[in-house]
Amino acid sequence: MEFGIVGLGRMGGNMARRLARKGIRIAVNNRSHEVSTAIAAETGHLACASLQDLTGALQTPRIVWLMLPAGEATETALDTLVPLLAPGDLVVNGANAYYKDDLRYAGRLTKHAIEFSDAGVSGGVWGLENGYCIMFGGSEATAARLKPYMEAFAPTPTDGWLHTGPIGSGHYVKMVHNGIEYGMMQALAEGFALMKDKPGFDLDIGKIAELWRHGSVVRSWLLDLSADFLAKDQALESIEPFVADSGEGRWTVLESVEQGIPTPVMSLALMMRFASQGRNDYAAKMLAKMRQGFGGHAVKED
Amino acid sequence: MEFGIVGLGRMGGNMARRLARKGIRIAVNNRSHEVSTAIAAETGHLACASLQDLTGALQTPRIVWLMLPAGEATETALDTLVPLLAPGDLVVNGANAYYKDDLRYAGRLTKHAIEFSDAGVSGGVWGLENGYCIMFGGSEATAARLKPYMEAFAPTPTDGWLHTGPIGSGHYVKMVHNGIEYGMMQALAEGFALMKDKPGFDLDIGKIAELWRHGSVVRSWLLDLSADFLAKDQALESIEPFVADSGEGRWTVLESVEQGIPTPVMSLALMMRFASQGRNDYAAKMLAKMRQGFGGHAVKED
Repeated sequence: MEFGIVGLGRMGGNMARRLARKGIRIAVNNRSHEVSTAIAAETGHLACASLQDLTGALQTPRIVWLMLPAGEATETALDTLVPLLAPGDLVVNGANAYYKDDLRYAGRLTKHAIEFSDAGVSGGVWGLENGYCIMFGGSEATAARLKPYMEAFAPTPTDGWLHTGPIGSGHYVKMVHNGIEYGMMQALAEGFALMKDKPGFDLDIGKIAELWRHGSVVRSWLLDLSADFLAKDQALESIEPFVADSGEGRWTVLESVEQGIPTPVMSLALMMRFASQGRNDYAAKMLAKMRQGFGGHAVKED
Repeated sequence: MEFGIVGLGRMGGNMARRLARKGIRIAVNNRSHEVSTAIAAETGHLACASLQDLTGALQTPRIVWLMLPAGEATETALDTLVPLLAPGDLVVNGANAYYKDDLRYAGRLTKHAIEFSDAGVSGGVWGLENGYCIMFGGSEATAARLKPYMEAFAPTPTDGWLHTGPIGSGHYVKMVHNGIEYGMMQALAEGFALMKDKPGFDLDIGKIAELWRHGSVVRSWLLDLSADFLAKDQALESIEPFVADSGEGRWTVLESVEQGIPTPVMSLALMMRFASQGRNDYAAKMLAKMRQGFGGHAVKED
């Protein structure tokens, strides 16, 4: 056993399960140990209570695949891991991260002759069944070591994984992927909003979503998902109109500014998420007050 | 033979071919008669030199399916057809059209007891092989008459066609479909632009497009198409950065304004097409001159 996963959330847990289905036994670790023991009981993986247990259980050269939240959780794990690892070991950052952070992590590990790879993993909770789409950066030697695991994670051994280039490139490509995702989601959502209550037509937007899955130009996995939930509920009355954003969209816009390449749709899709979070409310209040100021227009008061 | 197609361009011609493959023989008509005779020779359809020939060749009650450009070409054909048709005949407007025009056309035909259906057809040049995705408005009786043809056009007899509701609703849904298409295309294009020349990573965007087709959240038919052409040419040096727009995107934005429902991404995708057509050039010149005015900044002169 040379491979361990740290962080068994929605993504990491299912990735551990997918390896088990492909006959690969690994060590697993999670902040709450009961999650590890539950997954171990289900899969035959080895549950490790700490990073020390995990690194102790793996043969060298080890591969430690991190699936932790970007930022502090990942940084803390790296702090703990560095003295536990040996030259030739390989750390894979498999959670979403800003590619510039990966470059920093890699620089730090290189001082200890520890290899690094940044792996962007797409596929959501469906990856367990369908396989994950993985894009990863690192050296050619690192890519060769990761190949058997990539073949198991991916939908097929040959499709759905790519060594994108040097360290940082995997998360760079994943960042752009998510930026595109923001734009595609927003376009679909706007379109359905225009159809939902169109007077006079009484459109069945669940049937329309299902229709478009067959032969239309907009057929896509995001449309498939939309057709699924619209078949059950079109009104969405129980859903708050709040959309979280988790970093990748912001990093995409930063990159657009740094390169000076326009990404208006991806940027605006991010801004609309901010608005959904109530972050446009103060500006809207300002507008209402300005209209009142110059035209005496009524303002709505709470 | 009760069914005729008028207009054998990229869409109409292939739709006629698709019916032939499904064993349905029809009458066809096109402004240039040689196009009709060529398709007739290929398919066994009946080539008609004029609308009069076409209506004369069809048994009543006839179905005349128009695949003409929106606006004048369609209006002129309707002018010619009205005196040639009989009560109970059915005219289908299968080209893209503004749904408000359909309501007007239908009102006119109704005076002559001629039925009307507005059919939005998606699938592009691939529809011949894959089947078309068709959304159409009209009465229940009209839907029943069109069913055998819809089953032949669609990818399968049961999937890919939908009677969306009353007259106008078919093209309304197709309009929104194309608005979504504009947004999705723009999001994908922006993402690839951010990867194309990213310094230090030397990304193979053809391989990345192919990668994302397998298990990623952005997998879609538009990505499939992009992977196809990027596999052959990533530089796109021979392509002018000019994107046409053909009505549906504009109608979507008008609808957004009329309903007062925000569609920022679909609208901005349209604006970026206008910009690609050189329609932002005067504004850019104004900005350059203003910067010169307040800050003495240099302007680029031709």
